[in-house]
Amino acid sequence: MKMNIQGLVRPEIRTLEPYFVPEVSYDLKLDAMENPYDLPGDLKKKILQRIKQISFNRYPDAKGMALRKAIAGYLKVSPEEVLLGNGSDELILAILLTFGGWGKRIVYPVPTFTVYGLLAQITGGIKREVFLEEDFQLNARKILKEYPDVIFIANPNNPTSNCFNKDEILEIAEKSRGIVVIDEAYFEFSNRSFINQIAEYENIIVLRTLSKAFGLAGLRVGYMVGSREVIKEVSKVKLPYNVNALSQAAAEIIVKNSKRINKTVDIIKAERAALMEELKKMVTPYPSETNFILFSCTQAQELYKYLLKKKILVKVFSESYLRDYLRVTVGTPPENKKFLAEVKNFMRGKK
Amino acid sequence: MKMNIQGLVRPEIRTLEPYFVPEVSYDLKLDAMENPYDLPGDLKKKILQRIKQISFNRYPDAKGMALRKAIAGYLKVSPEEVLLGNGSDELILAILLTFGGWGKRIVYPVPTFTVYGLLAQITGGIKREVFLEEDFQLNARKILKEYPDVIFIANPNNPTSNCFNKDEILEIAEKSRGIVVIDEAYFEFSNRSFINQIAEYENIIVLRTLSKAFGLAGLRVGYMVGSREVIKEVSKVKLPYNVNALSQAAAEIIVKNSKRINKTVDIIKAERAALMEELKKMVTPYPSETNFILFSCTQAQELYKYLLKKKILVKVFSESYLRDYLRVTVGTPPENKKFLAEVKNFMRGKK
Repeated sequence: MKMNIQGLVRPEIRTLEPYFVPEVSYDLKLDAMENPYDLPGDLKKKILQRIKQISFNRYPDAKGMALRKAIAGYLKVSPEEVLLGNGSDELILAILLTFGGWGKRIVYPVPTFTVYGLLAQITGGIKREVFLEEDFQLNARKILKEYPDVIFIANPNNPTSNCFNKDEILEIAEKSRGIVVIDEAYFEFSNRSFINQIAEYENIIVLRTLSKAFGLAGLRVGYMVGSREVIKEVSKVKLPYNVNALSQAAAEIIVKNSKRINKTVDIIKAERAALMEELKKMVTPYPSETNFILFSCTQAQELYKYLLKKKILVKVFSESYLRDYLRVTVGTPPENKKFLAEVKNFMRGKK
Repeated sequence: MKMNIQGLVRPEIRTLEPYFVPEVSYDLKLDAMENPYDLPGDLKKKILQRIKQISFNRYPDAKGMALRKAIAGYLKVSPEEVLLGNGSDELILAILLTFGGWGKRIVYPVPTFTVYGLLAQITGGIKREVFLEEDFQLNARKILKEYPDVIFIANPNNPTSNCFNKDEILEIAEKSRGIVVIDEAYFEFSNRSFINQIAEYENIIVLRTLSKAFGLAGLRVGYMVGSREVIKEVSKVKLPYNVNALSQAAAEIIVKNSKRINKTVDIIKAERAALMEELKKMVTPYPSETNFILFSCTQAQELYKYLLKKKILVKVFSESYLRDYLRVTVGTPPENKKFLAEVKNFMRGKK
């Protein structure tokens, strides 16, 4: 029986462009803001020993209490103010299912992390994109004019790599009737957080992830911090067993060893400064408060293709207003050296 | 600034009763249909060796191709007809986000797996529950009368443990304009599947899980099988990196060793028969095509409490029409013996 499947699909989904994961071959992956270092050997060994003890046949702790307590200790908040997600992507979805959806206005500045818009559309909300100012700064007034029900602000922002003016964000939290989600995925590189503002602004939710500085992208652990009431509501929507047992155990160990992780962050920041200096000689990089650098150059599209031919993957953008930009993750010193050498080769060929 | 957070929450969520995970202390967990056996030692060792090789700092394969190929090989379908989920729960959500949502009619027989109704409500659909017949059978006509956009049919059903009449299900697939999701979570115990019907009925989606027979509840891996067009649409909605790298690797090894897993299934089925015989002497158990048994007895609520006092957790139901029923997972021989001894003690005390 031939069915018209398209006719059954919700119109928002039918027209949706899926999240783009490039299917190309590469030796050097500098497109996804991953930590270039795998875990220190002794920590990985400790995790493997713990995993060995887990009964694979039993459901994970639905509340993820041990990990929430570890995170709460690290943040100096209460475990009841923390909720775990299968990556922070899942929490973005849960927030939208709680506060967004059909008829609700979902507002975010652009350019930013594309998943906000993707999930706003999937959950049936009304997407309102507000362009950043020329200096990549946020304009509170323009955001507020959209009457947002939910606002997403990545701070530092991806792909622009800057933090926004704190006063603009607080003005939004103060004057908006909506939920203000501040995504601090790159917090460990910027050291600026709104967690301390949650007590005062109950409508603020802070998102964090263990996928970047903490080096656990493969394990899918994100978390949100919010008032008890916000956490209670979003908890209803999250899937019962959303974070698997192995990731919970590994993440707990890593969070409890956050001081060691911070050493990696220092190394990446030093390496970022070196990469920035070299890039300045060839292209126009923008200041970075993350583990990546956005830069512009007149032949960005050709440079992307050239690097790919050399098996180096960086991020190119589909948005027309970003066609002169590329984004590169800070790698290890040899990785950055290899990348810089190829940018130099490309530039030389173009002269 | 004190906000009225409740006022921001969508009404469907405000009134939602969250998925119930009991917070009680127990020695013997027979409430969640877990496989009572952890993986064989050599397979677990193999998995740990594989996990050791994984770069924790890198995102997992977004398409999960290695695992999809393994599953496709096991099922004798194409990898393009398979989609992975963070447990089948996540796929139920993705299906509803694709084909359900605001204004759509989500129909399922009751009693059944509570997550269908929970996620139908979370995604804003119109829930239509249709009571099963007296013999726990499905009535296609009653389902069709609800004009379903999406229908969920657990086959075998939870908690009734029976398979439905095949002709009734096919009548629904034939006459409905909607998507028919057949949840075969317990397939390995019933050996009856609708996967072969997908070629003919493009609107059929089959859900499977590795959480039951395959003994990977802690790792959260479910999958769906459907026509290429259905898979393509639902793929757009699933989160980009939804199944973590460790679970993908472990599941691939387990699926490739499915013959060994089937041995455990045979053991559980034999043990189910023994448990059934003993239960018949004390209560009224219903025929089982799963790894659990539903039974009724006049003092179900008291028996539940008595067992809990003895640190044995079985499933009690919040629905008023199930107040005389309990559900028990088939455990290991010593576990079942302990459970039966306490049921006997309870019955003796009641005489």
